[in-house]
Amino acid sequence: MTAIFLASDHAGCRMKAEICSYLIQAGHQVTDLGADGSSSVDYPDFGYKLATSLGSDSTARGIAICGSGIGISIAANRFSWIRAALVHDVTNARLCREHNDANVLALGERVTGAIQAIDCVQAFLDTPFAGGRHQSRIDKLSNPKLES
Amino acid sequence: MTAIFLASDHAGCRMKAEICSYLIQAGHQVTDLGADGSSSVDYPDFGYKLATSLGSDSTARGIAICGSGIGISIAANRFSWIRAALVHDVTNARLCREHNDANVLALGERVTGAIQAIDCVQAFLDTPFAGGRHQSRIDKLSNPKLES
Repeated sequence: MTAIFLASDHAGCRMKAEICSYLIQAGHQVTDLGADGSSSVDYPDFGYKLATSLGSDSTARGIAICGSGIGISIAANRFSWIRAALVHDVTNARLCREHNDANVLALGERVTGAIQAIDCVQAFLDTPFAGGRHQSRIDKLSNPKLES
Repeated sequence: MTAIFLASDHAGCRMKAEICSYLIQAGHQVTDLGADGSSSVDYPDFGYKLATSLGSDSTARGIAICGSGIGISIAANRFSWIRAALVHDVTNARLCREHNDANVLALGERVTGAIQAIDCVQAFLDTPFAGGRHQSRIDKLSNPKLES
């Protein structure tokens, strides 16, 4: 069973709780890294917590949520082992697995409805990486370098 | 006049050309970093080219395009001075400026229509950063660090 880590800022807590319940009911092993929603927090802190957790378990997956999903996806993608895909629909949730081998799904609580978000999570967990021509691109994402 | 750098893989070339024409007509200073669409290329190479160009000009903006926008946005966000927002609609294009001070707009040619993409570009260029409580979060995006 793949370990799944959840992280959000205060603006993503409600969606995080709904996804957490769904995943536990489906029998997944889930770790909630916060926030707990009791106060305003900074999304980079929780994106970085998620990246740290995934850094020690290459098979784990993450789900990252903030108001729009933009900020926390930028934060998580600062690290070479994270491939965080910000999605708003099932098509992109599927594509991020097939083409990008995404290990983090990023969602925005204020821009995507709860049912759609759960469908995105399901597609993210169910879709395998297509490999082939996509592998060399993934390898390059693991070795960022400046180039002109 | 803000300098605008455009970059895409082969799957984003048509949209890149349309946005380039639009920006030039609107009087912007535009640099097209490729790809030229003549062959299949790897999106990380072009995300990294864009990050390199923006690294030497803190006032510049970037527009990054691939099939879904996912891969090239992950690549660009590997660098601490890039805040690349993957958007599919005007609301998120506005939010990424107001809340995240995004300096790169990421789009997916295969998932977003041309007219909607142009509207996103316009919102991205026209919307100022809101500052305030958002500033400390932006500062944290510039200093990524692992934390448990």
